[in-house]
Amino acid sequence: MSQIKLISRASRVLSVSGVAVRAELSGTVLPQPQGNHTSVRTMASAQKKTLTLETLNPNITKLEYAVRGPLVIRAAEIEKELEKGAQKPFKRVIKANIGDAHAMGQQPITFIRQVLACVSDPDLLESGQYPSDVKERAKSILAACGGQSVGSYTMSHGIELIRRHVAEYIERRDGHKANWQDICLTGGASNGIKNCLQLLCNKVDGKDTAVLIPIPQYPLYSASLAEYGLGQVGYYLDEDHNWALDINELERAFLDGSKTHAVRAIVVINPGNPTGQVLTRSNIEDIIKFAQKHGLFVFADEVYQDNVYDKDSKFFSFKKVMRELGAPYDSIELASFMSISKGYMGECGLRGGWMELCNIQAGVQAHLYKAISAMLCPTTLGQTAVDCVARTPMPGEPSYELWNKEKTAVLESLKQRAKMIVDTFNSMEGFSCNVVQGAMYAFPRIELPPRAIAAARADNKLPDVFYAFKLLEETGICVVPGSGFGQRPGTFHFRTTILPQPKQLQEMLDIFKDFHQKFTKEYS
Amino acid sequence: MSQIKLISRASRVLSVSGVAVRAELSGTVLPQPQGNHTSVRTMASAQKKTLTLETLNPNITKLEYAVRGPLVIRAAEIEKELEKGAQKPFKRVIKANIGDAHAMGQQPITFIRQVLACVSDPDLLESGQYPSDVKERAKSILAACGGQSVGSYTMSHGIELIRRHVAEYIERRDGHKANWQDICLTGGASNGIKNCLQLLCNKVDGKDTAVLIPIPQYPLYSASLAEYGLGQVGYYLDEDHNWALDINELERAFLDGSKTHAVRAIVVINPGNPTGQVLTRSNIEDIIKFAQKHGLFVFADEVYQDNVYDKDSKFFSFKKVMRELGAPYDSIELASFMSISKGYMGECGLRGGWMELCNIQAGVQAHLYKAISAMLCPTTLGQTAVDCVARTPMPGEPSYELWNKEKTAVLESLKQRAKMIVDTFNSMEGFSCNVVQGAMYAFPRIELPPRAIAAARADNKLPDVFYAFKLLEETGICVVPGSGFGQRPGTFHFRTTILPQPKQLQEMLDIFKDFHQKFTKEYS
Repeated sequence: MSQIKLISRASRVLSVSGVAVRAELSGTVLPQPQGNHTSVRTMASAQKKTLTLETLNPNITKLEYAVRGPLVIRAAEIEKELEKGAQKPFKRVIKANIGDAHAMGQQPITFIRQVLACVSDPDLLESGQYPSDVKERAKSILAACGGQSVGSYTMSHGIELIRRHVAEYIERRDGHKANWQDICLTGGASNGIKNCLQLLCNKVDGKDTAVLIPIPQYPLYSASLAEYGLGQVGYYLDEDHNWALDINELERAFLDGSKTHAVRAIVVINPGNPTGQVLTRSNIEDIIKFAQKHGLFVFADEVYQDNVYDKDSKFFSFKKVMRELGAPYDSIELASFMSISKGYMGECGLRGGWMELCNIQAGVQAHLYKAISAMLCPTTLGQTAVDCVARTPMPGEPSYELWNKEKTAVLESLKQRAKMIVDTFNSMEGFSCNVVQGAMYAFPRIELPPRAIAAARADNKLPDVFYAFKLLEETGICVVPGSGFGQRPGTFHFRTTILPQPKQLQEMLDIFKDFHQKFTKEYS
Repeated sequence: MSQIKLISRASRVLSVSGVAVRAELSGTVLPQPQGNHTSVRTMASAQKKTLTLETLNPNITKLEYAVRGPLVIRAAEIEKELEKGAQKPFKRVIKANIGDAHAMGQQPITFIRQVLACVSDPDLLESGQYPSDVKERAKSILAACGGQSVGSYTMSHGIELIRRHVAEYIERRDGHKANWQDICLTGGASNGIKNCLQLLCNKVDGKDTAVLIPIPQYPLYSASLAEYGLGQVGYYLDEDHNWALDINELERAFLDGSKTHAVRAIVVINPGNPTGQVLTRSNIEDIIKFAQKHGLFVFADEVYQDNVYDKDSKFFSFKKVMRELGAPYDSIELASFMSISKGYMGECGLRGGWMELCNIQAGVQAHLYKAISAMLCPTTLGQTAVDCVARTPMPGEPSYELWNKEKTAVLESLKQRAKMIVDTFNSMEGFSCNVVQGAMYAFPRIELPPRAIAAARADNKLPDVFYAFKLLEETGICVVPGSGFGQRPGTFHFRTTILPQPKQLQEMLDIFKDFHQKFTKEYS
């Protein structure tokens, strides 16, 4: 276990041999248990609490989710202080910490919202204000709901009609058959990912199960592995090759992890979060071969599949590449995840998504579907939005032109912002930033002067956390320190979204430049 | 552990000493692992599957959720057969298995749906078709959303404005202060219940944690305890006293469970599911005293708080009773759960609810809020509906009259149906059914002739499962066998909702009567 932790948490300690306290590791303000378990019952009964830091599920104590971590909590406090009239060197907080497009000013896709309005209030179907394809869509969804109401439960894996539309979407995307029975609608991708990860909790040949995850990674993975008590084996993405997956590094991580754990699955995020790379087809082929060789279940996090900006990059789904590799590779166990929160839709608040399950043993899939049934169903309105994403307006239909215009505008603007942010960062001293080929983030590497590192240590913070806190307090810009995602020891990064609208983004980058110059000067 | 299982699973075996195979226990068609773990890796690699029935998370294999179990899966198959023109002795399936009001013909509350339409498509705010209070409500919710869009993420515990409205709702209900910071919005009550249960996973004094749950219970509890590997200690509800909680029985269960486990929490469902009782204030007082005495965390499942039909019954929240008992009882750890799926709203598909946390250690609550942050947020549209439920139209506001009319009509009709169903069941030979004082279910006890029990055994089914399958195949009526909820050994029950509309309910009861007569005749 300690081996594994060394791999995965290496990025969080100042030196491999360093003894770091947890507060330093994460910059967290959350309380930690003290004392030992034997004394707990006595303490608890004195305080009349059965749930204390000592008796709390230790996996919950361990769990961290930097995207909404202490820095973001502080950002919310600052917003409240500003509301109350506090004097700060800035007027508002810029939340570049989370891929929350609408919050940053992106406008919703009209077609989705009109369909949502109609299924919510079917009286609107009688009014003349909506295009006919909006009304038809709403009617078809209502017809698939119990009692023709979105207030009814659906099947736990979602409305059959919508699952069929998702399968058709995937067939159009990949040029390969998709079975609608293998599509499971979810309340956002996170739900599906967690439900699948949980299936793996078991000992195999006397060893606990572990999962390979990228470093840097999206912290839902580290958080869920901690929650489920699964081992985490990090493989480093290759920063020098635009965050590609290096098969030698995968082999190294697998070998290391296998010393203590049964390594049974690999997570790949493509396009990358927080790293913004788009994997080449040949890289995906190699990963599939690696997974097949070691009998790994592949988690393909493909929620940014619409977000590809680089002219030389293209999104290939793991499913497509696997099918086209043929036997024996086309029989690997694969779950692919999609969300309506990203892409051009950015409908984070609606909570909708799906997973496609490939080559899962029928009995296992039945148990998965049974397990999710206790949670009843994903939200019908999220499912409605999923339907609008899986089956978009087609040329010739009344809503097509507006839909296409809105979609193109969002993606074009994101493309410009991706370039703007990378160019600016790369023009800054001590910054180096890979091309943002896709997704919604830049993950620049920053050099921090030794005096800054010492100051961070004195402040009981990791250097990148120290930097990000300074940035927040002095400029109102909220980013997430690289240690929240993992990074090679001795390197420092942060993640920023590319989502502020162009004018605000320019303003943010100007402020950032100023801050970084001052910071470097202060600590040089 | 076997002690505990004996208590909780007693109802599932034919005799306490009987060796029962799992298929018989649950009537499930789900595949079970074969062989032992040592052989697994070989099998898995031969089949190139890393996830097999043998390597699957054993807690997921164990988990059962009867409300959507094998009987319900069969009901869905029958519906498909009917669609394809199969000849059956009935024309349609009546789904009395799940509290899904809209699916059974209940109409949505107009105010909720109009607000949902407006926040989905804010262009509707400019149109003249909605009352001013609908538009104001929608505007206030949009103003609380990032970028004024329901497409934005909210805080993980929900929009502050709505949490404040929930606190005000609770204050009006109870006459006691509620802190909005202790309100956590959820995607339905189930989410909140699971998140709180999960906190308890830990050993205390070397013993695994167990939770007291009622028998009969709502199977989300048994399913979640299985999923989290928590011990389940059943306490029997007193069928002879309209399913009250008998403190002696609670003490017995606590003592029994404590032999092997650290019993740290108790679940109480009031009004009762599947049992339909409404606890008296004095019963609640006794339960709180019992919880305080043993230092138990109380899970108060109060999702049916609006569903009280009996003229002599009244809903008292655990929070209110606890506060009014005063010290030392007012410091017990308590979580109360509420949902928009039940009550007069019946908005199951929207997935909205809340929990109120009382007397939880601040650090523990911080860890809970952190843990849910990885799941980002409950759906904004579910939160919107929660707001409409917490802050209903008030007298004098444009939407009040219609809202009040709709609400009253739903609750009045449910009251009549509750009576109709109980009266009919009690007029049937071999049936006895407690008064449905509240909630949405009747849980009648049925006598099954010895020959029926023998036939069930021959068919590898529990007797009540056998009965329910016969009922489904011969009449199209889908109920849930009592064994899915738990019942005293040797007794047989089923749960039916009271939700079919009056005419359909009368028809269902007539068919039921016929069926039962034939069944009794066949097996006498």
